[in-house]
Amino acid sequence: MKLGFLGLGNMGRAMARNLLRAGHEVAVWDRTPAMAEKLVSDGARLAWSPADAAREADVALSSLSEDHAVFAVVLGGGAADRPDREPLIRGLAPGAIHVSLSTISPAMSRQLDEAHRAAGQRYVAAPVLGRPDAAEHGELVLLAAGQHEDLERCAPLFDALSRKAYLLGDRVERANVMKLSANLVAASLLEVFGEAYALAESHGLEARQVFEVLKDSMLAPQAIAGYGERIANRKFEPAGFRLKLGLKDVDLALSAAETVALQMPFASVLRDRFLVAIARGLEDEDWAAVATTLPHKRAA
Amino acid sequence: MKLGFLGLGNMGRAMARNLLRAGHEVAVWDRTPAMAEKLVSDGARLAWSPADAAREADVALSSLSEDHAVFAVVLGGGAADRPDREPLIRGLAPGAIHVSLSTISPAMSRQLDEAHRAAGQRYVAAPVLGRPDAAEHGELVLLAAGQHEDLERCAPLFDALSRKAYLLGDRVERANVMKLSANLVAASLLEVFGEAYALAESHGLEARQVFEVLKDSMLAPQAIAGYGERIANRKFEPAGFRLKLGLKDVDLALSAAETVALQMPFASVLRDRFLVAIARGLEDEDWAAVATTLPHKRAA
Amino acid sequence: MKLGFLGLGNMGRAMARNLLRAGHEVAVWDRTPAMAEKLVSDGARLAWSPADAAREADVALSSLSEDHAVFAVVLGGGAADRPDREPLIRGLAPGAIHVSLSTISPAMSRQLDEAHRAAGQRYVAAPVLGRPDAAEHGELVLLAAGQHEDLERCAPLFDALSRKAYLLGDRVERANVMKLSANLVAASLLEVFGEAYALAESHGLEARQVFEVLKDSMLAPQAIAGYGERIANRKFEPAGFRLKLGLKDVDLALSAAETVALQMPFASVLRDRFLVAIARGLEDEDWAAVATTLPHKRAA
Amino acid sequence: MKLGFLGLGNMGRAMARNLLRAGHEVAVWDRTPAMAEKLVSDGARLAWSPADAAREADVALSSLSEDHAVFAVVLGGGAADRPDREPLIRGLAPGAIHVSLSTISPAMSRQLDEAHRAAGQRYVAAPVLGRPDAAEHGELVLLAAGQHEDLERCAPLFDALSRKAYLLGDRVERANVMKLSANLVAASLLEVFGEAYALAESHGLEARQVFEVLKDSMLAPQAIAGYGERIANRKFEPAGFRLKLGLKDVDLALSAAETVALQMPFASVLRDRFLVAIARGLEDEDWAAVATTLPHKRAA
Repeated sequence: MKLGFLGLGNMGRAMARNLLRAGHEVAVWDRTPAMAEKLVSDGARLAWSPADAAREADVALSSLSEDHAVFAVVLGGGAADRPDREPLIRGLAPGAIHVSLSTISPAMSRQLDEAHRAAGQRYVAAPVLGRPDAAEHGELVLLAAGQHEDLERCAPLFDALSRKAYLLGDRVERANVMKLSANLVAASLLEVFGEAYALAESHGLEARQVFEVLKDSMLAPQAIAGYGERIANRKFEPAGFRLKLGLKDVDLALSAAETVALQMPFASVLRDRFLVAIARGLEDEDWAAVATTLPHKRAA
Repeated sequence: MKLGFLGLGNMGRAMARNLLRAGHEVAVWDRTPAMAEKLVSDGARLAWSPADAAREADVALSSLSEDHAVFAVVLGGGAADRPDREPLIRGLAPGAIHVSLSTISPAMSRQLDEAHRAAGQRYVAAPVLGRPDAAEHGELVLLAAGQHEDLERCAPLFDALSRKAYLLGDRVERANVMKLSANLVAASLLEVFGEAYALAESHGLEARQVFEVLKDSMLAPQAIAGYGERIANRKFEPAGFRLKLGLKDVDLALSAAETVALQMPFASVLRDRFLVAIARGLEDEDWAAVATTLPHKRAA
Repeated sequence: MKLGFLGLGNMGRAMARNLLRAGHEVAVWDRTPAMAEKLVSDGARLAWSPADAAREADVALSSLSEDHAVFAVVLGGGAADRPDREPLIRGLAPGAIHVSLSTISPAMSRQLDEAHRAAGQRYVAAPVLGRPDAAEHGELVLLAAGQHEDLERCAPLFDALSRKAYLLGDRVERANVMKLSANLVAASLLEVFGEAYALAESHGLEARQVFEVLKDSMLAPQAIAGYGERIANRKFEPAGFRLKLGLKDVDLALSAAETVALQMPFASVLRDRFLVAIARGLEDEDWAAVATTLPHKRAA
Repeated sequence: MKLGFLGLGNMGRAMARNLLRAGHEVAVWDRTPAMAEKLVSDGARLAWSPADAAREADVALSSLSEDHAVFAVVLGGGAADRPDREPLIRGLAPGAIHVSLSTISPAMSRQLDEAHRAAGQRYVAAPVLGRPDAAEHGELVLLAAGQHEDLERCAPLFDALSRKAYLLGDRVERANVMKLSANLVAASLLEVFGEAYALAESHGLEARQVFEVLKDSMLAPQAIAGYGERIANRKFEPAGFRLKLGLKDVDLALSAAETVALQMPFASVLRDRFLVAIARGLEDEDWAAVATTLPHKRAA
């Protein structure tokens, strides 16, 4: 396939290389030309503007750092009158696809969809999970949303880029929401480890010991699946561990931490969250029911 | 071995049964005699007070709901003058061991240790991880701390009760801290799922889809081990994902949630925690470094 | 009146002195005798145990640091067999009153009430608001709950101790809850100033300038009364400032703080609280309606 | 003076009227023409675009709802090619002043400053504190930043609009930061009342009683000034109330709230904040020192 690739940071460069290896023709562009030049020896053609990279492409892929960069490169912004900044949307042919691999806001993703649609082009949101080394080895997980036929056309690209592509329907922003949800879980894990280790270390245990125990218990795959599925299915009976006992244990942890002047903000939030659940009458339900007490509206 | 067992709720009953099955003689006691009677057909002897259950035992085990119950049953409290409430400590022979399986405060555990020591008895803290069904099948994880020779004497009991006993040294309260740390991780996971699912569902995704993706990415065993070990070892270079980009993604998640009036209190805390890390100059470190920014003192 | 006074820290000593000045006979006791001796030159009699201080008193007052101290001094605890620790309750005559001036838990206050009642004695909860210098000048605010006739008997004492005594009915623990609510407001103010000043200072303003503006606007007496009364009366119409605009402003503050890596945990909580209110459909109500969205049960 | 006024919501209309009453000539514009027409009977001239309102003005004032609206009306945005949306900046004469009364981000304020400067115009940030009824009576507090000579030229307008204008120097964004800090304090007060009242009401007290006590103690002007000034001046000695006792009281409040399943998220944060302070060794300082423990960088 003829491809354009925009944004050649650590992630983008690794992905572009995989596309080249898979036999595609790739025109590359980066705001910093030196980044793009690194791919010439891999067979890439150097494009001199986003539009140029997209011009002859069946599919143009972008891997950029955030909303503002995407706006500038894809739709054009402040410097759009510089010829070397002519935006992707002005080069992409009618019917050609823009695949956005970046982690951007759902709102920006929807805006891209509308802009491409208005220009007679196609848009697929396809943010990826994984670090640069996973990208290099084609071991990313890819989260794709777009029109069915566009996703099909992109399948060989997804194969080259990832070990697994999840197809999430035609509402493009959902792929971005999925990405944000997944990242939130990872970020939360960091704090979870931080608080558990700090509590243990402040009492003379070693963090490594804690991880050994966790890996064998709360963080064993079947334990994680137990909670993850139970909550997804909202199946809280029979109660394996009652919510009010959960509150008791969180209180014990907070008290133990107080003796060493350790703040544990997640634990403090948990206490409040369990109280909300108890105020709703869930005290004798399985403690996983706490996960169901976040009110919200529904996106349009 | 001759054993006493005090506290025959769902957890205690299952554990006492495993000890009977393993061939030990067990005298059983519960505040509610009907709970104890259920074990007579399994071969248990009915004791008429905590002290009576402990009287002839080499090892007396207790599985009680919380600090106050432990205080009353083991050390004696308000109703200690009723003969049927004579506390464990008055019955246990010198040199015999009390194994506390309950989830109690580290402070209470230390208090038990001192009281038994003063009475010429031995004390082992051995809280367990796992639900009643795991207890039934001897599949608990047991966290034990106490004098080395006492832990050795208890080894056959730990074998009967658990699939794995972690020996955590002679500072008894550390077993209780480990238990609280592990429970905190599990409780946190509930909220993590709650927020990630709510964000996704409010945008039209299904929670089950989110779990499928998570299981294959952020919550895959190697991903969890990656974070858990990296943080335990405080090894944050090279940076796989920079902390300031982590903040960006948390901000995107918070903004997406705001559009559906969804509060995500863990995400709000994360935002604050990343800011603390950035204020300390960690913005270009691996985002896992956020886990190292909780100041505390050290327990005496 | 004949009085006993137990606990002669900075607060207690100042209060005891005011009672002496008002012409009462006061027997004083403190765990550290040197503290009590300071009052002898003011005319106090040195008591050698809590019970001794209470023995001939019409009213025994206690000013102690926390629940455990109150338990030990009033009801007797570990060291109750030492004659110099004989607790207040063993000395106080039937019909005589114990006035607890300490900041203790509502539960402990109720426990004291029951114990004194069982002993044929009377109990009044009367925690105070104010610092040692206010105590010295009789400028405290006193929060009293107890039986009507007991409060009447204590009126001259309250006059000597405080510039104003609020009588809060016969449920003793309510005085303690009122005290805790008031202290929570003061503690919150500290953090409120901390966050507002930090946001301003990080952008080059001076904290003193901020306070000048606040004193003249948000923290002017009529502004505070406006919010305090509006919320107490749950009167949110007409909306002076709509809740969704309030969220917008909190978001702006959070964003401005993010540019200087400043965490503002109260602001983060506010964001979540406004979202909860909006999820409940309150977005066009006066923003003060956010104060009504904390679910809870009611104490027995 | 010849004035333009853009944005005639509740706030804007009241302010524009005061300017008319003060004898100024005012051309008015609102996105919804009917809003502007209401002022014709007061003597205003109806402008047909933002630029038109600004064309002959010495000073053009804008009162708009948020950043996006300001961007569109002042600098021009999506619909800028519609003649009736020609932005303010295209109409304002060189040397004339734009006074932005809106609550906007400091970043947007700086952007306006730069844009006007580039166009040879002047810019003053002047957000206001107060509700529509205060605006009507000229009782607003105005927070102004800009070049000294521009602030002087605007003085008569500030007089007509407000009872007091605070002049905050020539860094325009500081006026906006001050506004956000002040609003944050007001928003925090709402939650403070919410939590204090909920704790009290759940225990049978009335919110009005709580406010009576607070008004006479923690929220009396001298008490507020005591904390506000002490923290501004970072003067924490002698300690009126030690930080570790503050933590004790917050813990008591949290425990009392737990008995009625009441979450108090500010109180939970306070607990964590006191712990941070104690981990830094501040436990025996005045509790107001907690306000100094928020790390941050400094804006450029």
